[in-house]
Amino acid sequence: MKETSRSETERVAGNGLLHRRMFLTGSAAAIGAGTIVDQAGAAPLAVEPWMRIPGAPFNAYGQPSKYEEKVARTWASAPGTGGTGSARTPHHLLNGMITPSGLHFERSHSGVPDIDPDKHRLLIHGLVKRPLVFTLDDLGRYPMQSRIAFVECAGNSGALFAKQPANANVQAIHGLLSCSEWTGIKLSVLLEEAGIDPAAKWVLAEGADAAGMSRSFPIEKALDDAMVCLYQNGERVRPSNGYPLRLLLPGFEGNMNVKWLRRIKLTAGPTMTKDETSKYTILLPSGKALQFVFPLEGKSIITHPSPGLTVRGPGFYEISGLAWSGYGKIAKVEVSADGGKSWGLAALQEPVLSKAVTRFRMAWQWDGGPAVLQSRATDETGYVQPSRAQLVALRGDRGNYHNNMIQSWAVAASGEVKNVYA
Amino acid sequence: MKETSRSETERVAGNGLLHRRMFLTGSAAAIGAGTIVDQAGAAPLAVEPWMRIPGAPFNAYGQPSKYEEKVARTWASAPGTGGTGSARTPHHLLNGMITPSGLHFERSHSGVPDIDPDKHRLLIHGLVKRPLVFTLDDLGRYPMQSRIAFVECAGNSGALFAKQPANANVQAIHGLLSCSEWTGIKLSVLLEEAGIDPAAKWVLAEGADAAGMSRSFPIEKALDDAMVCLYQNGERVRPSNGYPLRLLLPGFEGNMNVKWLRRIKLTAGPTMTKDETSKYTILLPSGKALQFVFPLEGKSIITHPSPGLTVRGPGFYEISGLAWSGYGKIAKVEVSADGGKSWGLAALQEPVLSKAVTRFRMAWQWDGGPAVLQSRATDETGYVQPSRAQLVALRGDRGNYHNNMIQSWAVAASGEVKNVYA
Repeated sequence: MKETSRSETERVAGNGLLHRRMFLTGSAAAIGAGTIVDQAGAAPLAVEPWMRIPGAPFNAYGQPSKYEEKVARTWASAPGTGGTGSARTPHHLLNGMITPSGLHFERSHSGVPDIDPDKHRLLIHGLVKRPLVFTLDDLGRYPMQSRIAFVECAGNSGALFAKQPANANVQAIHGLLSCSEWTGIKLSVLLEEAGIDPAAKWVLAEGADAAGMSRSFPIEKALDDAMVCLYQNGERVRPSNGYPLRLLLPGFEGNMNVKWLRRIKLTAGPTMTKDETSKYTILLPSGKALQFVFPLEGKSIITHPSPGLTVRGPGFYEISGLAWSGYGKIAKVEVSADGGKSWGLAALQEPVLSKAVTRFRMAWQWDGGPAVLQSRATDETGYVQPSRAQLVALRGDRGNYHNNMIQSWAVAASGEVKNVYA
Repeated sequence: MKETSRSETERVAGNGLLHRRMFLTGSAAAIGAGTIVDQAGAAPLAVEPWMRIPGAPFNAYGQPSKYEEKVARTWASAPGTGGTGSARTPHHLLNGMITPSGLHFERSHSGVPDIDPDKHRLLIHGLVKRPLVFTLDDLGRYPMQSRIAFVECAGNSGALFAKQPANANVQAIHGLLSCSEWTGIKLSVLLEEAGIDPAAKWVLAEGADAAGMSRSFPIEKALDDAMVCLYQNGERVRPSNGYPLRLLLPGFEGNMNVKWLRRIKLTAGPTMTKDETSKYTILLPSGKALQFVFPLEGKSIITHPSPGLTVRGPGFYEISGLAWSGYGKIAKVEVSADGGKSWGLAALQEPVLSKAVTRFRMAWQWDGGPAVLQSRATDETGYVQPSRAQLVALRGDRGNYHNNMIQSWAVAASGEVKNVYA
């Protein structure tokens, strides 16, 4: 009934996608989701039990409502371990750009170390003029900066390489991505303090976990936008994200953002640690592997609707999701409701920030028939997110890392949403 | 010793304030806070106990480190109540722009109601064509938007009206301010859905707490940037901030951002609720009171250093803090280290967003002598934050609300920091 009020000129792509102008103007009348009541009967509402008694007292550190317990990370750990594996962010239950710190994804190689901040040290050594050791108090003296940035595990979305589409939701497939406001010290400031030997071309970063997780990266990144972070979303970095110190290499694959950072060493070449030789290389169809592939390419996922969020009958819906690129800002996100046959431009939520997630939103008038929803990100370098066929042609389907192919969600006439290949 | 390496051309104001260029270039050599070690002795660092055993397992919802228990809200409640009063954000222990949701300030008039989201309803009625009732599922159908915005209690910083400076820290004086990413529906979208009667000029918003907290505001704000928020920092709004729904009136005094929102009524004039007549008016020296003063004026506070954060001897420090305005973006923040005799321009952390806090940073070479630190915000309308003398001349010192005077922190030769009037 409300359907008829939508002019055909609003439609920008097949299967009910509407112009993004409603997000720009803030006008979106005639969705009709509310229930009409008569003026006489409208007030008063029922006085619910929680209005009849004083509410809960103050507390020192708040938590989510008990009704939101389902909004939780899910995880898998290697046999015989409790903390070797990963825990995933429930993106289908979140909205906005910031991931709450309690739900930030976690990839750990030997659990979360219980670090006493007063005993923790950061050593900067190797090809420097003055090797330096810093306490946290020392680091607190340096000028800081803040940046909203995503961190994404190299293995995120690897499930989409499977020959048959897994019966899995956005958390299971894409939950190794999160976005926080990070605050800390530019690594370049600390390196200048130590004095960079001109022979230094690479940097080794090592964590204080039992795995001694360590990675090397070119010094150009250290001198560009690398940060030693003390704060995450305003407070000290959470233990599962590297308390009391983590490295942030904006846009680079997750494991390189070394958590529990204890050591930075300047070197002439890459260190070839176990974490960059035995894993985190990209296997090609030829049998050769790419090593040192650092930035994550342009990518997007639709979080609403997605599996588990059943569409409740024909009518208006917002399609929304996240887009990001390790190379800079998102330039545009296109959405399709017909499996890629036609595309419409989504609205991008401001502020659109470099190497941060951008929330996109698209208006959809669902006619109740089958639909296949897709999103396709383009970043400011002009890079376009590939289809599944394009990525498999390039990399084969035996890989695990850097999977940024377009995700397809099929919406059945029943409203059920499923992971499909299209 | 390091002091001599700082050119006099870097100095921009008295008592050691340095040019903000180090924040722009990311170069800040010669702070000298680290300890020099010799190359031979530098590695390996001690292998701490937490590196010798596997770390903690994954969990569903993470928490801060046990070593951060001091990072907590403090509160005061009316006699005989546990939740009638306010809880304050510890800004001296935070950094960045986002306030972690667990530390967001809280002002409640009768505690935090324990609301079952499945039973909660939002009614829109009064001067509308079709009164509507919405469930949370209904609201989930509407197009959403996200916005990073501050909320500040009208009574924040009221302690600075006291005739003598209180021996209090930034949390106690200024802790009724926080900043989150809010996601929800534009109120205008819901009002259009109900159909606005042309006679409607004001809006009443009512909460579902035992106090039935309610305020009225002009319909222009509803049609401008008002939002009905479902999400805070990515997850559902926290109970103490209005779960499952809160109104956001960006830039308007805190209590108007009605929590636990249950009812919106369009009216011809203000409703004159108890919450806008018995309180939240501004008493003038003449004995008259201003009513319906909505936006919070341009303001800033230095959070680092501040009382409790003792300065550890002469040398380099970052002075940092927060600036905000209910009228739009912050245009500039000036900092003084000599009690307002001279001012230098602080660096503003991007992104600078309208009606959000902006973190500012200033470089300071402390010579070890007494200093009085101040910050002064100017917003994009040209409004300049007043001195204490200016605000008292305008409003007297018997008021409690909308105190945005410049805060002065005295740094003693011992490094101790205190609240003073200067």
